[in-house]
Amino acid sequence: MKKMINNPDDVIDELMTGYLIAYPEYIRRSNLHQRALIGKKRHPDRKVSILIGGGSGHEPAFLGYVGQGMADGVAVGNIFASPSPIPIQAVTREIHDNHGVLYVYGNYAGDLMNFEMASEMTEIEDDIETAVVIGNDDVASAKEIEERRGIAGELLVYKAAGAAADFGYGLEEVRRIAQLANDNTRSMGIGLSPCYLPQTGKPSFDLEDNEMEIGLGHHGEPGIEKTTLRSAKETVQVMMQNILKENIYQSNDEVVVLVNGLGATSQMELYIINKEVDEILKEKNIKTYKSYVGNFITSMEMGGFSVTLMKLDDTLKSCIDHPVDCPNFKEV
Amino acid sequence: MKKMINNPDDVIDELMTGYLIAYPEYIRRSNLHQRALIGKKRHPDRKVSILIGGGSGHEPAFLGYVGQGMADGVAVGNIFASPSPIPIQAVTREIHDNHGVLYVYGNYAGDLMNFEMASEMTEIEDDIETAVVIGNDDVASAKEIEERRGIAGELLVYKAAGAAADFGYGLEEVRRIAQLANDNTRSMGIGLSPCYLPQTGKPSFDLEDNEMEIGLGHHGEPGIEKTTLRSAKETVQVMMQNILKENIYQSNDEVVVLVNGLGATSQMELYIINKEVDEILKEKNIKTYKSYVGNFITSMEMGGFSVTLMKLDDTLKSCIDHPVDCPNFKEV
Repeated sequence: MKKMINNPDDVIDELMTGYLIAYPEYIRRSNLHQRALIGKKRHPDRKVSILIGGGSGHEPAFLGYVGQGMADGVAVGNIFASPSPIPIQAVTREIHDNHGVLYVYGNYAGDLMNFEMASEMTEIEDDIETAVVIGNDDVASAKEIEERRGIAGELLVYKAAGAAADFGYGLEEVRRIAQLANDNTRSMGIGLSPCYLPQTGKPSFDLEDNEMEIGLGHHGEPGIEKTTLRSAKETVQVMMQNILKENIYQSNDEVVVLVNGLGATSQMELYIINKEVDEILKEKNIKTYKSYVGNFITSMEMGGFSVTLMKLDDTLKSCIDHPVDCPNFKEV
Repeated sequence: MKKMINNPDDVIDELMTGYLIAYPEYIRRSNLHQRALIGKKRHPDRKVSILIGGGSGHEPAFLGYVGQGMADGVAVGNIFASPSPIPIQAVTREIHDNHGVLYVYGNYAGDLMNFEMASEMTEIEDDIETAVVIGNDDVASAKEIEERRGIAGELLVYKAAGAAADFGYGLEEVRRIAQLANDNTRSMGIGLSPCYLPQTGKPSFDLEDNEMEIGLGHHGEPGIEKTTLRSAKETVQVMMQNILKENIYQSNDEVVVLVNGLGATSQMELYIINKEVDEILKEKNIKTYKSYVGNFITSMEMGGFSVTLMKLDDTLKSCIDHPVDCPNFKEV
């Protein structure tokens, strides 16, 4: 492990400090909890507040998506570990505006437990209504949709939820639109090289020099198979086959494409992957409305990437078109 | 080498194709040359055009900085190799608006030769006036300023040049402001792990598992010394000592801080580094006006980072405050 850090026990607090220093006009620490961050920019029409969160190590997720047009606050967990209910409740208390709070997080056992507990606490102790959308876009993680993990597609759910909130909708309508975004979104990931956990120095998974893992999760969870390293074209073909066989994306549909790097994969490679995705979509006569290519939800210095499609209707298109102004995601 | 590519000979053309697919509203290929890209967004007050360029492998540099408020066009070289004069001339011909073209590029022998030749060609053949600013912010690369390499600080020179052009200034004034930005900017880099050249599979440098290189260049050029891996705090102290001993940054000065990842260093680490930079600046009573933290000018999947300071006066502050809208750099 070769990391530019200080004491491994301090990485979360230090990264948060460095983050707050970088973007003082966007974000502040909660008065109620050290691991709760609160956005400073909020659309004047917004009623419902959006709360996101999860484990650390995915930077710029999740704290990078607090800002105008996206989330109002974030609860920050340890590396690859859910935040406890206490910071989630703290964020909820600070961001709510008497119109309810939508929680958006990924489908992981720890997050489910902690966000559900926080939701009960805030409803009982603080009389704040909450609703929830759980990201589960990773087609490789399970056959049953309800059992699937959330990976990079969550970014698009934040975007939809944030836009719907900025449109001034109530809690149930914001939840419905965010859920629609999630339901229309499918992803698949590839692992090339592991990341190393700061406190143990252990790799997140093992692969030989000539191997890749198809369907890898964002924390190094095993995928569908380990194979020898393939070309970008062959790899994307396998990924797109798995995404397209979900039967969501049809000829003449318009989609958002998201090519997400896990950390150590070069941007050169991500753009080559984007080209391969585009060729397959053109063959299928599926239209790309918008592409996002970059490191949006990473796994520290893991090598690999994911491909995500979100099918658009008029509602989701208006959400994608809505401007956002976050430290790590700006759409003019 | 573990890269998600197709034929190594095709990486530049394929990355450009994937890039153009991602941002059709921002950028197009030149009608005159395959390796020349032209921006589609231009401030209505802009007279002077800005041309940037250099070798590939630094994505999102340099093509990511074509857009409103930054560059009007980019000449794209092979991996870590300057573009030839032909695409530079092609970009110049397409972007000029009868008020001259400013070339901004890094201080490398190949770039100097090719941009100078292109400048002569366009002045003689096309009667287009050009001016030049050469980035040389890397304090570790030579004692004499004129001999120093340009590294991540070039981003801030593009920002200053682009803003000055948007203000409607003439060529000499745009050049003067961009040169001021360069003169007020110093950087230093650290290498942790090499990148691999697609066509040879060879690493850009060799380091042991417990080693780092202080003062490393953006193509793996040797730095000041190889040492055992140090903490973020100790490493940043060495870098900041070298930057501050240039005697540019004094108590009460305002600066821009740029923490640039080289590719495979996690964003978590970059924010911890930002915290360490900030602590030293606070000790010296130097004020951070703005921080940029991210992967702005990379070296494919190289591990490492650089720290850059730019001292601000009122002119440069107005340039930093000016909005930009590029695919990979947006400032609202």
